[in-house]
Amino acid sequence: MTDLSALETPAVLIDIDRVESNLRRAQDYADQHGLKLRPHIKTHKLPRFARRAIELGAVGITVQKLGEAEVFADAGIREIFLPYNIIGARKLARLRALAQRINISVTADSRETVAGLSATFADAPQPLNVLVECDTGMGRCGVQSPAAALDLAQVIAASPGLHFGGLMTYPAAGKVEQNAAWLAEAVDLLTANGLAPEIVSNGGTPDLWRAHEVTAATEHRPGTYIYMDRSQVARNVGTWADCALTVLATVVSRPTEDRAIIDAGSKALTSDTLGLTGFGLIEAYPEAVITGLSEEHGTLDLSRCTDKPRIGDTVRIIPNHACVVSNLFDRVHLISNEQLVETIEVAARGRVD
Amino acid sequence: MTDLSALETPAVLIDIDRVESNLRRAQDYADQHGLKLRPHIKTHKLPRFARRAIELGAVGITVQKLGEAEVFADAGIREIFLPYNIIGARKLARLRALAQRINISVTADSRETVAGLSATFADAPQPLNVLVECDTGMGRCGVQSPAAALDLAQVIAASPGLHFGGLMTYPAAGKVEQNAAWLAEAVDLLTANGLAPEIVSNGGTPDLWRAHEVTAATEHRPGTYIYMDRSQVARNVGTWADCALTVLATVVSRPTEDRAIIDAGSKALTSDTLGLTGFGLIEAYPEAVITGLSEEHGTLDLSRCTDKPRIGDTVRIIPNHACVVSNLFDRVHLISNEQLVETIEVAARGRVD
Repeated sequence: MTDLSALETPAVLIDIDRVESNLRRAQDYADQHGLKLRPHIKTHKLPRFARRAIELGAVGITVQKLGEAEVFADAGIREIFLPYNIIGARKLARLRALAQRINISVTADSRETVAGLSATFADAPQPLNVLVECDTGMGRCGVQSPAAALDLAQVIAASPGLHFGGLMTYPAAGKVEQNAAWLAEAVDLLTANGLAPEIVSNGGTPDLWRAHEVTAATEHRPGTYIYMDRSQVARNVGTWADCALTVLATVVSRPTEDRAIIDAGSKALTSDTLGLTGFGLIEAYPEAVITGLSEEHGTLDLSRCTDKPRIGDTVRIIPNHACVVSNLFDRVHLISNEQLVETIEVAARGRVD
Repeated sequence: MTDLSALETPAVLIDIDRVESNLRRAQDYADQHGLKLRPHIKTHKLPRFARRAIELGAVGITVQKLGEAEVFADAGIREIFLPYNIIGARKLARLRALAQRINISVTADSRETVAGLSATFADAPQPLNVLVECDTGMGRCGVQSPAAALDLAQVIAASPGLHFGGLMTYPAAGKVEQNAAWLAEAVDLLTANGLAPEIVSNGGTPDLWRAHEVTAATEHRPGTYIYMDRSQVARNVGTWADCALTVLATVVSRPTEDRAIIDAGSKALTSDTLGLTGFGLIEAYPEAVITGLSEEHGTLDLSRCTDKPRIGDTVRIIPNHACVVSNLFDRVHLISNEQLVETIEVAARGRVD
């Protein structure tokens, strides 16, 4: 074990005890409510944490890109859900190659997407499992009504090479009732039309602990829950003590009494605010505000701090959004009891396509 | 040459003819005004463009991280300016190793930084060139007054192993007169005290074409000028036709008449707004607004578009901020006359420390 002060900054630290606790808490919750868990790996991009979630009871993983699916398939994960419209000859060929070695499911929200999938899988040995993506309030992808969900489900069910697998949504945070009502209506409508969905997949960490209120859902896909972050603490989904990912940074300048500059900028923390003021919480100086980020500089307002960091001090930052930080670092440091355990590559970092 | 439609999305395209034109325009401007150019490579992170800038007359390059300096030194660049406070034993050791194989200069804005540099270079064969970083209005790093610049210059000049190299600023955009007055006063004060600065290094693309108004400066360090981007066009520093970096994306969903979803989200474009509305310009649909980004989804408002893209169409996006996009992609595609020329690794991507 090595002391953390030996690490160069900026660096990402992952507290593996907090990870374990976060994984268990969510699995226990899901088990208690008879929900399946299909965690999203976008937050960590690390096969070992996917394997651990599955050991604890997760039914598989969720990814957002073919490139991520390929990395996790290479790492031995056999059950992967890719809730995305896969479009274009090259991506469809990659999807078919993946389907030859793992169980992979995808989503569609249009006839165009379904047509491409069907053309690709019409002569495949096994049909591709395709869920209908539903816009239950997020305003992103998804069919716009339960009637449209039925319509597309019928198209999928009638398409060569495809199997209608159910419904999927990424809901708007905080709109649990609206999401639940939408899905319940859709399930009723599909069931009445002989297409009862096997899977109804709900997602997101913001409303993870209310997932059981979405009674039509058979499973949940949380992502950020494994690390938590400042935005989730702001929503009371987790506490500061649950936050497993921190960015270690060094104070490189104290130009004025009330200003400090750290060596973590937008290339370490990203510009994501998620509606919050400031770009993260400095653990040892919670009154400090990270008021601005350049690529390699973070600017701190220390005016409310009684104690203030000095040049050369290291600080630990809980970022607004943990997932995007994982995508910026080639390596992360696993820690336990404030000691370095191991430094590992972020296997699926930067898998953009 | 390959057609761009063969590329998987999202992808970064770099128009090498526009790069050449942007490099030449800036070098011509600098030559015309007797300014030296020391371009910042953070925007492209590609050794070939650094070499080309030097061929055209640049006196060296600027980097922001030791890791970037190491990559460019490995690629044969011999004159590197790292305007950062280098702090901590491991970073200082890397700096000393670099100084054994290239000409490297750094900055300092505190006695603490100077002390670390001096302790590291006291027994070095050559003194380290150290410039004083000046806060001429940006509110980031830097000494706060010309008197403080003199004070720190005297400390550097008296420190074993160090050579006082001059002054450096990254100025606030649009505050040319303030920046010019600050530096002029500092140069006068230092000169009167026997420490006339050899180099006075000014920077930034926003006021690149007014760099000659900062009469005390001997050189300029532009970065974004090589690619330009939506924020620089908004400032009238360049035109859309100068923008060399675009993100190629596919329309993956058209959930409503006025909404499109593309496969470029914050993992391709970043959340940087730089004060603008929306997250980039869609070249073929300039009336479209990129209203929101998730990690892998971009949401477009098409309500002002007469013509609207269809599912499967590819679009090209000029991002708000080019530099941060370069840091998200392992590879970029060089194009000329809308044809693929070569796909190359982004050598210094992700050099966080």
